[in-house]
Amino acid sequence: MFDQITIIGMGLLGGSIGIGCMQKGLARKVIGAVRRESAIDEVMAKTAAHEATLDICEAVRTADLVIFAVPIPAIAPLAKTIAAAIAANSIVTDVASVKSCVVNRMEAIFGKRCRVVGAHPMAGSEKRSIAIADPAIFLNNVCIITPTEKTDKEAINRVSGLWEALGMSVKYVSPEQHDQCVALVSHLPHVAAFTLINTIKRSSHNPHQVIDFAGPGFRDATRIAASSPELWTEICLANKETLLGVVKAYQQELKSFIKTFEKGKTDELCRIFAEAKALKEASNEPSKDKV
Amino acid sequence: MFDQITIIGMGLLGGSIGIGCMQKGLARKVIGAVRRESAIDEVMAKTAAHEATLDICEAVRTADLVIFAVPIPAIAPLAKTIAAAIAANSIVTDVASVKSCVVNRMEAIFGKRCRVVGAHPMAGSEKRSIAIADPAIFLNNVCIITPTEKTDKEAINRVSGLWEALGMSVKYVSPEQHDQCVALVSHLPHVAAFTLINTIKRSSHNPHQVIDFAGPGFRDATRIAASSPELWTEICLANKETLLGVVKAYQQELKSFIKTFEKGKTDELCRIFAEAKALKEASNEPSKDKV
Repeated sequence: MFDQITIIGMGLLGGSIGIGCMQKGLARKVIGAVRRESAIDEVMAKTAAHEATLDICEAVRTADLVIFAVPIPAIAPLAKTIAAAIAANSIVTDVASVKSCVVNRMEAIFGKRCRVVGAHPMAGSEKRSIAIADPAIFLNNVCIITPTEKTDKEAINRVSGLWEALGMSVKYVSPEQHDQCVALVSHLPHVAAFTLINTIKRSSHNPHQVIDFAGPGFRDATRIAASSPELWTEICLANKETLLGVVKAYQQELKSFIKTFEKGKTDELCRIFAEAKALKEASNEPSKDKV
Repeated sequence: MFDQITIIGMGLLGGSIGIGCMQKGLARKVIGAVRRESAIDEVMAKTAAHEATLDICEAVRTADLVIFAVPIPAIAPLAKTIAAAIAANSIVTDVASVKSCVVNRMEAIFGKRCRVVGAHPMAGSEKRSIAIADPAIFLNNVCIITPTEKTDKEAINRVSGLWEALGMSVKYVSPEQHDQCVALVSHLPHVAAFTLINTIKRSSHNPHQVIDFAGPGFRDATRIAASSPELWTEICLANKETLLGVVKAYQQELKSFIKTFEKGKTDELCRIFAEAKALKEASNEPSKDKV
């Protein structure tokens, strides 16, 4: 499929892509660019690449596909670092879970030199280590590809082909639509869960004793409050404007609930709950994003 | 343990208590008081009582333990109905998931004639039918007993003994403390989940398409939004003042999050998430309330 794939960042996602490409022979050569000397051995031990290197510019010089698999704040600085070294007309993609800011920055940095395609494979977890890398995380999950007006059609097809070869089904939406959707179904639920737990903390002298009253409903509703604070800070800030709008819409909905609740009318309250139950039950939620 | 236990309302909880008492021989006689003629056969078919009857006053006349297992709004009217018929000095208890309003009303209605003990066995589901009644729902779960200053000590012990015989571990807190705790760990998470789903509905022309982006985090966080609207309307209204306070505290916490988010400072956001993660992970949440 590719002559040389270079993966920048060999954590859970980068490592899993590397192992998958090696196993399925998706490139003549797979190179992993890493930041720490010790990571080189980890990559080789997992057979996640043919070569691992600290020299990111050298790693991209002859690649026809470069995949950014680093935390969102690291993407733009690394893109600038390699912008002069990267092969002309090569394809550049990423795995970030927020897309507008990442795709816009990459398009601005690489200009017409290479072809940027944003992607969000909805798989993984808050753990980021290559130690748990496994291409099985992609199987039967969805990868969102986020083309813009500038995106090269052939590049979209080749990136889609990679993710399909790794076992994912591919969907296409604009970066903005992607960010609005994940703000609603992923980022907002995380904010709500973190806020639920902090409300309990603030409302009680002994929050542990209060949580002793909890059942499975509480456990499920707040499971994601144990997610990585660093990862979620990064995601929230990368999707700041969109997520702020969504959190404010949630606050508005809550305010309207409180108003109805204060009036205490059975049928009005029941209608609000029934509306939510109907949409929840009608949605089949087919994908399996762990982030 | 008891001479005659009368259970008023033979749904999931009443039925499960009845079957458990029959199986373990916890009373010489178990009577189920039901509202519908057809329910008599259902009770007998499940061996959930020795007798089932529509005559609630007759059913309580010789009982030494009367258990209300009906929806919260039905408790006070039924208590008034039986107040003159019930045996003097008998013990009256219930299974309602909100306690202050129920215990206060029962104490007022029965006065010194019998001994009221509030109880909340944390087991069950939003389904209420005797068809799925099974005393196994009590095993290894917690029953909260909520004594007041007026509660008779011997009556507390006998009610505790019943729940322990059915396999539950018993904890004691005041009705007010119970209602504050369940408002925080059960009622508020339900309100938050219903509100999350309604926010998605209001924020999109095609909410189903948005939910297509959802993963397991969303599924878990909003599972309880599929709960019974009728049951949750009943619970919210029965715990109205306490829950309103808790929902407003949540709103306040959300407002403070939005302020911090707007400033966009990495370390402040990270501190909020880390605080929630720490409490979530430190809590062992031992009980298993399905409501």
